[in-house]
Amino acid sequence: MLIIGELINTSRKVIREAVETRNAEYIQQVAKDQEACGATYLDVNCGNMVGQEHEIMTWLIETIQQVTDMPLCIDSPDETVLRLGLSLLKPGYKPMINSLNAEEKRYNAVFPLVKEFNAKIVALCIDDNGMPATAEDRLRIATALIHKMEKEGVVQDDIYLDPLIKPLSTNDKYGIEVLNAIKLIKRDFPAVHFTCGLSNISYGLPNRAVLNRLFVVQTMTMGMDGYILNPTDKNMMGMVYASQALLGNDKYCNKYLKAHRKGLYA
Amino acid sequence: MLIIGELINTSRKVIREAVETRNAEYIQQVAKDQEACGATYLDVNCGNMVGQEHEIMTWLIETIQQVTDMPLCIDSPDETVLRLGLSLLKPGYKPMINSLNAEEKRYNAVFPLVKEFNAKIVALCIDDNGMPATAEDRLRIATALIHKMEKEGVVQDDIYLDPLIKPLSTNDKYGIEVLNAIKLIKRDFPAVHFTCGLSNISYGLPNRAVLNRLFVVQTMTMGMDGYILNPTDKNMMGMVYASQALLGNDKYCNKYLKAHRKGLYA
Repeated sequence: MLIIGELINTSRKVIREAVETRNAEYIQQVAKDQEACGATYLDVNCGNMVGQEHEIMTWLIETIQQVTDMPLCIDSPDETVLRLGLSLLKPGYKPMINSLNAEEKRYNAVFPLVKEFNAKIVALCIDDNGMPATAEDRLRIATALIHKMEKEGVVQDDIYLDPLIKPLSTNDKYGIEVLNAIKLIKRDFPAVHFTCGLSNISYGLPNRAVLNRLFVVQTMTMGMDGYILNPTDKNMMGMVYASQALLGNDKYCNKYLKAHRKGLYA
Repeated sequence: MLIIGELINTSRKVIREAVETRNAEYIQQVAKDQEACGATYLDVNCGNMVGQEHEIMTWLIETIQQVTDMPLCIDSPDETVLRLGLSLLKPGYKPMINSLNAEEKRYNAVFPLVKEFNAKIVALCIDDNGMPATAEDRLRIATALIHKMEKEGVVQDDIYLDPLIKPLSTNDKYGIEVLNAIKLIKRDFPAVHFTCGLSNISYGLPNRAVLNRLFVVQTMTMGMDGYILNPTDKNMMGMVYASQALLGNDKYCNKYLKAHRKGLYA
């Protein structure tokens, strides 16, 4: 299970403030907290700091790497920032790039970095026709992306597909279309991985945290094996460990029992 | 979605006491509460009142039917009690029999009642070899049961398969085997329904309510469409309504929003 800690993102007010005051201690604490709570990668995103993104990405990576060897996931809409971030990473692990998609311009700009830095890649199911609506749309875009990358020597095990989650409040089939997409993609590409941000699913509905947690359980049941989320959210991580146990992915329920002892179900 | 309210069962201490004192008001309140909370059938079970089961089943059914027209599900290990219960029901709906299985003796004793009372039937995946272990065991037993009943004129739509849930604490694959069984059975018999009691899954583990609720979400994701549960458990029913919305089975999320307004997520 891949858990990409999402907290170091300047779209969050507390992070933006810490960045603006160069409060290294705060950023480092957020990195260590996410590591302690079970994150397997840490996302680093300052995409909304227009005009300062290169400088801030550099500061963030150096600041985080002073206190942890956690693998980082470099997240930016700007390919030159992705390249800069990747060049600053400690050696010893495959970095992750967040993200490319099937839009020709973005794909051509980001894909060379996958090869150059021997990186894992988050691949979004979007193409030049826009956002997908149905499970079949997602399968079609995913198939094109995977075939294209495989031809260039990328293995499925390094690809993390994001099926793109859209708000249930705008169409009551938007949940099931994602669940069916996972099933179809896994059928055709059993070695490929998945990741997604969850919170879109509940946009515009009450009890968002409940819906987000249940959608983790549902997508895991269909075979999703990665999430970009807040690993310090005990309720959410509790759902992940309990689901893993129920899905037969937790020997003797050891991780579930450990989560219980850590108070994740209190 | 079939929700069989499980509360009227003399294995529960409060019900046994109400039965022993012939406290009709209490039983009637439990029946009305389950109806108000969304049950679609009410289970009636006094199987542990050995030697008095005929008399008590009669009293329970008459008592319940004084205050509600809810469909009843007659639940007994004794086929003569099943027959008695079925003969006392108000007309106007298909009663439910809980349960038969593939053991020759039980099957031969209960099946005639399905035909005689034109009843829906809960069919347990057990045969003369005992309890199933794997998904394939369950598929084999379910296939034999469905074919046998179809030959006698029973339609799949009246069959509610119980895949039999066993404790995860005794084998960490017991959850996934049930999930895979649902997938296999639905693949071969798309019109058949499911039901199950959940609480076995969490036996021997901490935070049983959490595991039970998540297993509802997981089994629903695989296509299970019926449960024997406590419909007055707001958390559990909240999970059911939220899952239905995420699975695309709730037009405009109306039932989910109604559940929210009723405070099921408070």
